[in-house]
Amino acid sequence: MTLPGEFSLIGRHFRPLAGPGALGLRDDAALLMPPAGRELVLTVDAMVAGVHFLPDDPPDLVGRKLLRVNLSDIAAKGAVPLHYLMTVSLPKGTPDAWVAGFAAGLAVDQAAFGVSLLGGDTTSTPGPISLSLTLIGHVARGTAVHRFGAADGDEIWVTGTIGDGALGLAVATGRLVDPTGFLLERYRLPRPRVGFSLAGIASAAMDVSDGLVQDLGHICRASGLGAEIFAGDVPLSDPALAAGPAWLETCLTGGDDYELLLAVPPARAEALLAEAVRCGVAVTRIGRLQAGPPEVVVRGSGGESLSLTKGGWSHF
Amino acid sequence: MTLPGEFSLIGRHFRPLAGPGALGLRDDAALLMPPAGRELVLTVDAMVAGVHFLPDDPPDLVGRKLLRVNLSDIAAKGAVPLHYLMTVSLPKGTPDAWVAGFAAGLAVDQAAFGVSLLGGDTTSTPGPISLSLTLIGHVARGTAVHRFGAADGDEIWVTGTIGDGALGLAVATGRLVDPTGFLLERYRLPRPRVGFSLAGIASAAMDVSDGLVQDLGHICRASGLGAEIFAGDVPLSDPALAAGPAWLETCLTGGDDYELLLAVPPARAEALLAEAVRCGVAVTRIGRLQAGPPEVVVRGSGGESLSLTKGGWSHF
Repeated sequence: MTLPGEFSLIGRHFRPLAGPGALGLRDDAALLMPPAGRELVLTVDAMVAGVHFLPDDPPDLVGRKLLRVNLSDIAAKGAVPLHYLMTVSLPKGTPDAWVAGFAAGLAVDQAAFGVSLLGGDTTSTPGPISLSLTLIGHVARGTAVHRFGAADGDEIWVTGTIGDGALGLAVATGRLVDPTGFLLERYRLPRPRVGFSLAGIASAAMDVSDGLVQDLGHICRASGLGAEIFAGDVPLSDPALAAGPAWLETCLTGGDDYELLLAVPPARAEALLAEAVRCGVAVTRIGRLQAGPPEVVVRGSGGESLSLTKGGWSHF
Repeated sequence: MTLPGEFSLIGRHFRPLAGPGALGLRDDAALLMPPAGRELVLTVDAMVAGVHFLPDDPPDLVGRKLLRVNLSDIAAKGAVPLHYLMTVSLPKGTPDAWVAGFAAGLAVDQAAFGVSLLGGDTTSTPGPISLSLTLIGHVARGTAVHRFGAADGDEIWVTGTIGDGALGLAVATGRLVDPTGFLLERYRLPRPRVGFSLAGIASAAMDVSDGLVQDLGHICRASGLGAEIFAGDVPLSDPALAAGPAWLETCLTGGDDYELLLAVPPARAEALLAEAVRCGVAVTRIGRLQAGPPEVVVRGSGGESLSLTKGGWSHF
């Protein structure tokens, strides 16, 4: 479903992003010869202005975030990203500069993460800018890591720091001040942990996108285990610490972290640390999985169970 | 990016659509082991309420149309559809019955066309319902048919009848009356020509989604040829004929046909007819491609060149 205005838009902004198999975005469909013996890993996320990003966010960062939230899902399977398809629905009168900036952001991250555009559709909408991106990666057959698969006694680890994205949203909406600019940057530009090898290390994994506690709950339910984490062990950035203890709950339950949440058998902790060093990514042990009802208990410094009022970020 | 309301929505309506590799829609990404030696064919289309369908269209038909417009792109490559990923952005307060109807429509066509849901994302939107669907098919390596590849002297053929979709939109919006209901049905429920084998028959192909003349122009530009079609040879349904000659231009330039537009070397016409019989699909020769500037000339009954005011359907 294409149109003259769309052709021009595609030619100017999106064709330069097209990779092999995309047929120059001039055909009805794209071609992909899958790498021999590899399993494909596919994920899709939508982003809507006013829901997943702010209407005045810089368009290059919107493009990069759209790609990165999907890259994060691919990273959470231990897979290598390859190509993406995308739909872009724009209100009439969207400035050409917005589309140019959006495409420029995609171009930067295509180069950074080694992916290319395989196909797309551009339409108008009477609503806000609506984006959808399908990302395709690959992994050695049978080595993808899932949310299920964790065992009683596995340790819970996270990469990077937790809560910066949620605090960055608070900064963006004027509820928090961060003179360093670090938190806003983390909200606008996640750092997907692409290239972090999980096979042979993690028994289960996912990325933290809807809040640490809620997402850990997914691993619990998928693996049939309970979880216990220690609030004091959850790694916080200096700007997050500077926000003060009143923001701790936001850090634990907010969204937009895009860090890896891993279940790791104790015997594999050394392999995890070696991989973390190889990738230059910090990893921190924050708790453990154990037999029991699939619930997440967050413990304070005295070992007491903390009561959290929010289960995680909700888009509805 | 998920949320409690989303989990419930997914569990009730979308999980029953999930196929093998979808991991029950409970993971960050889906898995697909590509059929050995086959090339993947991928396409994506967005549909927005008020642009691509009418807000009061029955939701099951919206779901089926979303799937079918993508199936039509896969059919135009001569490929076999396999799986799809989908994003669904819904305004707050969208009735559960709408989602149930939408999913029921998808279920009907999944069964009809042999495809299944591999993954998705459900979000809210302050705008109209916005849908995006990525469809994955496969084809014997190197046999996909493209928009380019036609040669001087190739004949132009179409499947089915042309213009019903555009006239159906006229019916839906009260500009035309069709007591048979056929035209509205054709607008709401395209019939993608999945299973029609193109390899060894068509030198170029695409589906007619934006209007016959505009889409034929794509084949002309991609193949570096001019085209001449005869208005009197373009196959029209009985209800389209009943609409009268004032609607002919709409038939030739309107969108939403989802028929196949084929360039066929004369020596392969017999093979085309045999395939048409095998599939129970009518095919009609409407003109030819020839050396010259990449333009489409539409000729009337006296051989005169008809001047069309509309180039095709535009979503902007």
